[in-house]
Amino acid sequence: MTVDFAAKKALFHLPDGVIYLDGNSLGPMVKTAPARIAQAMAEWQDLLIRGWNKAGWMAQPAALGDRVAKLIGAAPGTVVLGDTLSIKVYQALASALEMNPKRRVILSDTGNFPSDLYMAEGLCRTLCGQYRLKTVAPEEVMSAIDDTVAVTLITEVDYRTGRRHDMTDITKRAHEMGVLTVWDLAHSAGALPVDLAGAGADFAVGCTYKYLNSGPGGPAFIYVAPRHAETARPALSGWLGHAEPFAFDLSYRPGQGIERMRVGTPAVLQMAALDAALDAWDGVDLAEVHRQSLRLQDQFIKGVETRAPTLQLATPRSHLMRGSQVSFRHPEGYAIMQALIAEGVIGDFRAPDILRFGFTPLYIDEDDVARAVGILAKIMDYGSWDKPEFKQRARVT
Amino acid sequence: MTVDFAAKKALFHLPDGVIYLDGNSLGPMVKTAPARIAQAMAEWQDLLIRGWNKAGWMAQPAALGDRVAKLIGAAPGTVVLGDTLSIKVYQALASALEMNPKRRVILSDTGNFPSDLYMAEGLCRTLCGQYRLKTVAPEEVMSAIDDTVAVTLITEVDYRTGRRHDMTDITKRAHEMGVLTVWDLAHSAGALPVDLAGAGADFAVGCTYKYLNSGPGGPAFIYVAPRHAETARPALSGWLGHAEPFAFDLSYRPGQGIERMRVGTPAVLQMAALDAALDAWDGVDLAEVHRQSLRLQDQFIKGVETRAPTLQLATPRSHLMRGSQVSFRHPEGYAIMQALIAEGVIGDFRAPDILRFGFTPLYIDEDDVARAVGILAKIMDYGSWDKPEFKQRARVT
Repeated sequence: MTVDFAAKKALFHLPDGVIYLDGNSLGPMVKTAPARIAQAMAEWQDLLIRGWNKAGWMAQPAALGDRVAKLIGAAPGTVVLGDTLSIKVYQALASALEMNPKRRVILSDTGNFPSDLYMAEGLCRTLCGQYRLKTVAPEEVMSAIDDTVAVTLITEVDYRTGRRHDMTDITKRAHEMGVLTVWDLAHSAGALPVDLAGAGADFAVGCTYKYLNSGPGGPAFIYVAPRHAETARPALSGWLGHAEPFAFDLSYRPGQGIERMRVGTPAVLQMAALDAALDAWDGVDLAEVHRQSLRLQDQFIKGVETRAPTLQLATPRSHLMRGSQVSFRHPEGYAIMQALIAEGVIGDFRAPDILRFGFTPLYIDEDDVARAVGILAKIMDYGSWDKPEFKQRARVT
Repeated sequence: MTVDFAAKKALFHLPDGVIYLDGNSLGPMVKTAPARIAQAMAEWQDLLIRGWNKAGWMAQPAALGDRVAKLIGAAPGTVVLGDTLSIKVYQALASALEMNPKRRVILSDTGNFPSDLYMAEGLCRTLCGQYRLKTVAPEEVMSAIDDTVAVTLITEVDYRTGRRHDMTDITKRAHEMGVLTVWDLAHSAGALPVDLAGAGADFAVGCTYKYLNSGPGGPAFIYVAPRHAETARPALSGWLGHAEPFAFDLSYRPGQGIERMRVGTPAVLQMAALDAALDAWDGVDLAEVHRQSLRLQDQFIKGVETRAPTLQLATPRSHLMRGSQVSFRHPEGYAIMQALIAEGVIGDFRAPDILRFGFTPLYIDEDDVARAVGILAKIMDYGSWDKPEFKQRARVT
């Protein structure tokens, strides 16, 4: 069964005149999202407190977890939604460290998203200085996994270069060395086939506002391998992760399985937007999505290298080492991206010199790519990025 | 200037036939919330990633913080929104402990909301077993504050009994003993006048989905006293709390003041609902709101004690020791509350035997109270709570 990409594209709201190559940062809205949000608002209005049971709000984090699980090769009952990715990183890492008590090193790489590193740093400080975060270059992760490492904290696809780690190989090596793995799927979930169960991953975390299109500030998710479900003990032990939240016991007892990774009151409106967005993924084969993304990426790379050769490819050429984005380097990257955005081609810039473009086949097609290449080529040919309004320093992009 | 309560009531959606005495659990919706949410959805649809700057999403947590600050006696720039209350408890507590490094005890009370205790427990475990949580009866908090205590973690108003602590006295005693204070304002913010600056509180946290009516899963807030703003170091050190998030440094440097207490990507839709809800608080004097709440509470207590005398008052009689709710005990409390809800009077039940009623003058008036008393009296007179459908064990209420 093949995905009808044209039909999928029709599910999304895409503003006129915009070629949106930034779904790797914030996905666009599905057309059904406003009605789904309006429904959640009506539930709140009419049911008030009774919505927690009658509208299923309380069960939403686990129900949505099962929907996300299908997209990342996880069994039902192993994923739960909530909080932000940074919080879920802390949660996974703290549990994993506690399960490997004789070791003191968290291994990550310098291509990891800074928030993951900051949260790990914060956790090490909280852990009374007994632990340390060690970062190596992405290419050196495999060789740095040794018997001093307690946990690896690796983002599968590099947010800057789009370089992809081999989850299966790294997890295998980690387990041989007695190391637990925490995988960050921020740039994987909804972008490429992930097989958490097959790879034997121990923990995984991710966000839903990128490729899964849940909207700004959509909830994060956490996965715990079934073999750890009753062992992992959350450091962030909130009442909705308690075995019996409504017993209001004074002491914490972890809930069953993945439920214990819940913390506080779930963000019902954001979850409703995610619920609508996940409908677009029904019947979608991630392997096919990724193949199509790679086709679009190749078209873009070829176009840019032919028509705008001063841009330097930062993403690996090998399909095996790519996620769903392509990045180019240029010393004037920020100004070039501003000029592109002014022309309706929305990608983003990551300091110091990376232009980032996401290729999301559910709503981006060959025509979009061809037009984007044309606009980029024109900007580079005429140097129209070299205007004062494009040259200020990056803030949020 | 007095509050026009009838005009305020007209701002809220309240379902026909419902007397809503559960605003202390989940506040009702203001009528402007759907339009404000629709606006946020339109920003997402049209601006996509550009919404972070152009729609002000990135600045929202601090802007809303300033609006909440006005309601809790805090200066501008000292409050920021985000995450859930449980996460904010962890964050405040971890910072406070680090600032009082020679002490090892967190003092709380058995009337505190369990999630606060669970998060403290989790933090103690994370802190390598070097710290411990000590809980005493609410009445014993003052005498238990001694020079072994590092931090107090006290919820100003008891979620079960409605008993109110004296924030000024406890904070004064704590400071005399070299103890830092973390105040949980879950049942205070929007319910009664809070003067964090005047009381000299060190940290405070709270939620917005109760009295502030932000909707299910609305964001939490955290306050840090200005004198600690540049000292407090977050354990949950996420990228949006970094001094320069978009520099993507590999190491964490705390942001300026309260900004450092931000963690991950803010929940934009939930924040939009809060923004609409806070309009109802414009020009409202919390002292007057609390006085009116006390009038409604007294009317309710008098009515219940006269007409349903088998219910035992659990809330202190003194106005000085009350928040915005009244609780009664009854061995069949759960069934009675179910019967009340079936008759349109919505309060809630807290195990093992507490019936809880919130009195929120922005949308509850004397007529509502009189009718609620009448319905409760009828249920008790005829024993109509003693039916099988009302007798099952509580889940979510």
